[in-house]
Amino acid sequence: MTDTTSVPRLSPATLEAFACGLFERAGMDADKAASVARLLVQTDTLGRRTHGLAMAPLYLADMARGGLQGRGQIEVVSDRGVTAVWDGHYLPGLWLMEQAIACGVERALQHGVACLAIRRSHHIGSLATLVRLATEQGCIAWISNSEPAARRVAPYGGREALFTPNPMAFGWPADDHPVLIDLCASITTTSMTRQLHARGEQFEHPWLLDGAGRPTRDPAVLEHAEPRGSLQLVGGQDHGHKGYGLALMIEALSQGLSGHGRADAPSRWGGNVWLQVMDPEAFAGAEAFATQTGHLAAACRANAPVDPARPVRLPGDAAEQHRQQALADGLQCSPQAWAALGDWAQRLGVALPTG
Amino acid sequence: MTDTTSVPRLSPATLEAFACGLFERAGMDADKAASVARLLVQTDTLGRRTHGLAMAPLYLADMARGGLQGRGQIEVVSDRGVTAVWDGHYLPGLWLMEQAIACGVERALQHGVACLAIRRSHHIGSLATLVRLATEQGCIAWISNSEPAARRVAPYGGREALFTPNPMAFGWPADDHPVLIDLCASITTTSMTRQLHARGEQFEHPWLLDGAGRPTRDPAVLEHAEPRGSLQLVGGQDHGHKGYGLALMIEALSQGLSGHGRADAPSRWGGNVWLQVMDPEAFAGAEAFATQTGHLAAACRANAPVDPARPVRLPGDAAEQHRQQALADGLQCSPQAWAALGDWAQRLGVALPTG
Repeated sequence: MTDTTSVPRLSPATLEAFACGLFERAGMDADKAASVARLLVQTDTLGRRTHGLAMAPLYLADMARGGLQGRGQIEVVSDRGVTAVWDGHYLPGLWLMEQAIACGVERALQHGVACLAIRRSHHIGSLATLVRLATEQGCIAWISNSEPAARRVAPYGGREALFTPNPMAFGWPADDHPVLIDLCASITTTSMTRQLHARGEQFEHPWLLDGAGRPTRDPAVLEHAEPRGSLQLVGGQDHGHKGYGLALMIEALSQGLSGHGRADAPSRWGGNVWLQVMDPEAFAGAEAFATQTGHLAAACRANAPVDPARPVRLPGDAAEQHRQQALADGLQCSPQAWAALGDWAQRLGVALPTG
Repeated sequence: MTDTTSVPRLSPATLEAFACGLFERAGMDADKAASVARLLVQTDTLGRRTHGLAMAPLYLADMARGGLQGRGQIEVVSDRGVTAVWDGHYLPGLWLMEQAIACGVERALQHGVACLAIRRSHHIGSLATLVRLATEQGCIAWISNSEPAARRVAPYGGREALFTPNPMAFGWPADDHPVLIDLCASITTTSMTRQLHARGEQFEHPWLLDGAGRPTRDPAVLEHAEPRGSLQLVGGQDHGHKGYGLALMIEALSQGLSGHGRADAPSRWGGNVWLQVMDPEAFAGAEAFATQTGHLAAACRANAPVDPARPVRLPGDAAEQHRQQALADGLQCSPQAWAALGDWAQRLGVALPTG
């Protein structure tokens, strides 16, 4: 495995061009390749490294086995202006979401609100990256998704995995940089659990349940034990009914409203999406919204911290710091991700950028 | 104080007529009195006793001191069809919400979705009771609210209360009875904390923070200590950034979009509301929605429980059990609530029902 010293630090533009080349050479339509590459690199710049370019080798592998569809068109299942349902036919999720957000923003500016449910998208990456696209156009956005082919979270009081972590990102524009709330219905995520397991480590806290429903710190229970365990719901043993409520809500929005989900027992990697875009101008006005949310942000940042060394931040503050740093200093992939990208570059005959 | 044996068990209809009489005699418009009485009693039938008739003496006291406004009209701040903003002028929150839901359902049936932000409502009681009204008409509803005059929850990493618990209820219709998800951004609520403090008890778990930001089980820190403490966010010390995200989102929706909130430093009891109503028919269809959510509900109820004696339930199952029992056996107020209602009945010259 490559060690850190041999991974070049590259500009986001260089990495984007490299990734775009890989996807195109693998057979993805040019516009889709460009979109996926751009948004994966944006995700890295925002500091969400598990969902950035590290995903590219997984997408390429899924394309090669006929999962992710590199070519094709969105099917409109229903369209009533304010509401719509799309079938994504397992097309690249980041590209699909870029189309969805463009459509959502246009319609929100017209109607005040737009809601879109998508069935059979492929993986949509980091929700915060996508929400940010809408905030850049002055809109509020909420994105949630679920994966009806996967089961990693048990209902509260149960011991059999049934849901996915079912994330929700919610963001709004602000003077300095957008507020980007990013949470999910489980305490930790599938990718964090896989990373820890790969490193042979344990979680610091018992964020999983084993197959008998007992709390555990061991990431192996999720995919390497029989009976399988699950990720604990937000609130854990103590108040996990709250995480349960979020998980159910997001399943209902993404699967119920898109009309496709666990009832159809799909088996492919992909997911269902809920997108809602709103224009503050259509309520009490963008200025009034900025006044109230600006006051709130200032009050949070001015709140006396429990630990004087750790001031209170807003969700999105850390992402903006990462972004500024990546724009100034470039990005360095993890040794694992770089090695996997290198393998694909060789296989597809794409030159590996050297910086 | 009255003991339990002297509190009569009464039919919901009898209690409703009694409460309606109290509100009318106190000077509330007849339609508003009827609505508030009906919804408080419905809340009791659903088993949410802290937000049922136990609230009536508090509403009457606030009316007497000029807070809650018994007479008046809703002011429409903006109306664009799919989106609207109302100023509730501290009119009875349950009545306001009954109007809001009727309006939201009508518009959702027309446009697919309707969103309404309300500033200066008075207390809106139990959100689950209100969401249920929309589900009875085949719609999905989401209600959240915040109280910009109150501070009881600190931002994550902070030690000064800034938010309210900021509840969210989300529900949808189902064959048997609606799913009613009911959660908030803090682990416990203001009313639970006050009840425990009144009884001289401690929480079983450290669900509050003292004024220095240390976890505590003592309910006194919320309103009876200096410096004041706060309610812990959902996720607690371990993953309270998730509760923080929910708290911020609900402040932005209810205050930001209604254009009134903490930036205006209001001091009256009341709150701001976010209401969203959706018609599943405007997405992939009501039947497809029922298929997916019905499958999900069945899968949850069939999930092997951690404790064999406690099967997995859906949010709303317990409320339905309470409702069936209340309809069959009637309702008995708590001795405290009955004593307070008796005081108001005497003061206003309303006969106390005896069963």
